[in-house]
Amino acid sequence: MNSHSNLSVGEAQARVLQCVPSGGIEEIPLERSPGRMLAEDVRANRDLPPCDVSAMDGFAVRSADLTCGGAVLTLALDIKAGDRPQKVIAAGECARIMTGAPVPPGADAVIRVEDTRMPSDRRVEITLPVKAGNDIRARGEVMKNGDVVLAAGMEITPGVIGVLATVKRARVLVRRRPRVAIVSSGNELEALDAPFDPERIPESNGYALAAQIQAQGIEPARLGIARDDPRELADILRQGLEYDVLLVSGGSSVGAHDHVRPTLEALGVTLHFWCVKIKPGHPMAFGTRGERLVFALPGNPVSSMVCFEQFVGPALRVFMGHPRPFRRVVAATLAHAVRHRPGRTEFVRVTLRRNADGLRVASTGMQGSGNICSMALADGLLIVPADSEGLAAGAAARVQLLDGVGFEEASEFMGESS
Amino acid sequence: MNSHSNLSVGEAQARVLQCVPSGGIEEIPLERSPGRMLAEDVRANRDLPPCDVSAMDGFAVRSADLTCGGAVLTLALDIKAGDRPQKVIAAGECARIMTGAPVPPGADAVIRVEDTRMPSDRRVEITLPVKAGNDIRARGEVMKNGDVVLAAGMEITPGVIGVLATVKRARVLVRRRPRVAIVSSGNELEALDAPFDPERIPESNGYALAAQIQAQGIEPARLGIARDDPRELADILRQGLEYDVLLVSGGSSVGAHDHVRPTLEALGVTLHFWCVKIKPGHPMAFGTRGERLVFALPGNPVSSMVCFEQFVGPALRVFMGHPRPFRRVVAATLAHAVRHRPGRTEFVRVTLRRNADGLRVASTGMQGSGNICSMALADGLLIVPADSEGLAAGAAARVQLLDGVGFEEASEFMGESS
Repeated sequence: MNSHSNLSVGEAQARVLQCVPSGGIEEIPLERSPGRMLAEDVRANRDLPPCDVSAMDGFAVRSADLTCGGAVLTLALDIKAGDRPQKVIAAGECARIMTGAPVPPGADAVIRVEDTRMPSDRRVEITLPVKAGNDIRARGEVMKNGDVVLAAGMEITPGVIGVLATVKRARVLVRRRPRVAIVSSGNELEALDAPFDPERIPESNGYALAAQIQAQGIEPARLGIARDDPRELADILRQGLEYDVLLVSGGSSVGAHDHVRPTLEALGVTLHFWCVKIKPGHPMAFGTRGERLVFALPGNPVSSMVCFEQFVGPALRVFMGHPRPFRRVVAATLAHAVRHRPGRTEFVRVTLRRNADGLRVASTGMQGSGNICSMALADGLLIVPADSEGLAAGAAARVQLLDGVGFEEASEFMGESS
Repeated sequence: MNSHSNLSVGEAQARVLQCVPSGGIEEIPLERSPGRMLAEDVRANRDLPPCDVSAMDGFAVRSADLTCGGAVLTLALDIKAGDRPQKVIAAGECARIMTGAPVPPGADAVIRVEDTRMPSDRRVEITLPVKAGNDIRARGEVMKNGDVVLAAGMEITPGVIGVLATVKRARVLVRRRPRVAIVSSGNELEALDAPFDPERIPESNGYALAAQIQAQGIEPARLGIARDDPRELADILRQGLEYDVLLVSGGSSVGAHDHVRPTLEALGVTLHFWCVKIKPGHPMAFGTRGERLVFALPGNPVSSMVCFEQFVGPALRVFMGHPRPFRRVVAATLAHAVRHRPGRTEFVRVTLRRNADGLRVASTGMQGSGNICSMALADGLLIVPADSEGLAAGAAARVQLLDGVGFEEASEFMGESS
């Protein structure tokens, strides 16, 4: 693989990910940790449950009293969660017990309230036999003091937060997030706050890229627009190279007015590739200076966003130690034929609709790489393999899911009756 | 449907969503809007492209000069993006042009640089015929001044941000987020910052619920732990009813020590149901006071999180105007049999692994509703329908995807060669 050649998407991804440093570790409060990657093994600091507890609202009994298939027992005690019962339940006795409350000494089973009857305030009638241990959660069943309950490298999901709170970790060690800078380059660009000029192009890439980065939980720095002036460009790129990751959109084509690549090289950046067989996505370059990563993304808004998804997003996630760097891909059926000339892997902006057989995928229309509206409408990116000669209507296809499609319009349970 | 009866999951979802008010509208800066729902139709404020522009780095030509299948033309002009060429391209002339640069008067087509040769500095040889309009992006092709380019109700994804920046919307109208309060109830609970007491249960639900709410982009208020004291409980619930949505976990069972339900009713909350045929998830209650929503969630950590996913999450998303309130469900193949007694819809915590045939789903083990570790390990919730008599190994199954599984371990493109 020659580093200057026209790489496949997979080769380019591999080249990028080889260069991603480990971002290091920091300690943060539990409440700020969702979405971060755990950087330590976490051990239980107690047995849980701390003692045998009831799994039901009901009555704690001695199973030996019920071997004949039922009995009428004397209510000797009332135990709720948080109580610490000392009294021993004797033969013929039982205790009213709440879910989560400690099973009193003497009792060895719980019978749920629905399976009992109370002929008087002090008498409980039970008509079923019960085995020792019934509806009891044993001490240490969930976790034992000293056990590793969470492993370094896990993503901190709400479930992981639940475990961290259970072992009382008010602060946790997590992988650091990268600091990311965004520079947009081009004389034709008009800033969001600049006066309206009908002949210029509004600067949108910086905002779209920022939103893609925010979706990874990272707050990027937008350094602004670099005009096609070598000194201005060098100044802003030098500033960008102070960050862990620098994204430059636009200005990296092979054309005569391109200053980005030579300026990056003059600033000590080693370029690893500047051609990937991806559509849209030309031209896309990647370089490093020490542990700093630099992505020169295309100026076309769609190309820029598609390249972000394939190369930058996975790099940011690997930096943060994420075990899952790549967008989820789902199988879907094509609603219509898709034309393709072999050579480059193509990412077609598509919508997904669920039907009886699964997911149906259709183009958003308007696939021009300058048409940002196609990204606004897209649920996903249909992957057309580089060697494909086109896909037929009804064919199986693979679709990368974009932000927002973790959720669906319809409930799985709608129209259910009880 | 009797409001007090044992509702199916679908009936309970429908009952909750009927009660969700529209959260109203606010104006926020573009940079803070990702993930919010657009509350206005957005129109283009210009034609885009603003004029005919080149889709390629190449040469702007008069197609009439190339009708014979090629020509050698004189380079008359050099145009880069942001320029405003005035000179008319005459017969036999061409202009060097960059991607995105305006097509000069006289020219009606672009030919890409790869299809040309320059025998001298001033001569360009073109060997192909070219049609009028070739590789030109026509004025207004992406959007025309005044067109609606984004519709109210869309989720603000990175692609939508790109369009908003394109039409220079520095501020946008979005649907308001709900203010959400969390109360944990129970004498047995030990606060995160309280001294270690081996016989108490650490309070984890409030943190796990907070993380589930944060995953919806909402920063909740944790009001703390209410002990089983009627006045203390009433005080904290009264405070919670100032919020749009109040979550109370624990203390809502049918047991004798339950104060939550009567206290909510005494505070003017109308309870719509307090029994759902869901496992884990008992007891789960839902009520309203005016437009305020109250969810009394189970005290068991897993039950609490599962009920959140089915009822609270969709309600929060509907409040925010989200067109997609429900977790994405995927088809997967069961790695092992799952036992089930007909009656309640069961949500089994599972992992998902991709294999050649699609997704393979397996239990995380340890399905006790007190076992928060099962939620920490889960990629999704396997849905066992209420009327199921069990699922066989190898059977098709449906799985709700949880947070964190929008991404995968392996790249679709790994091992590709160029």
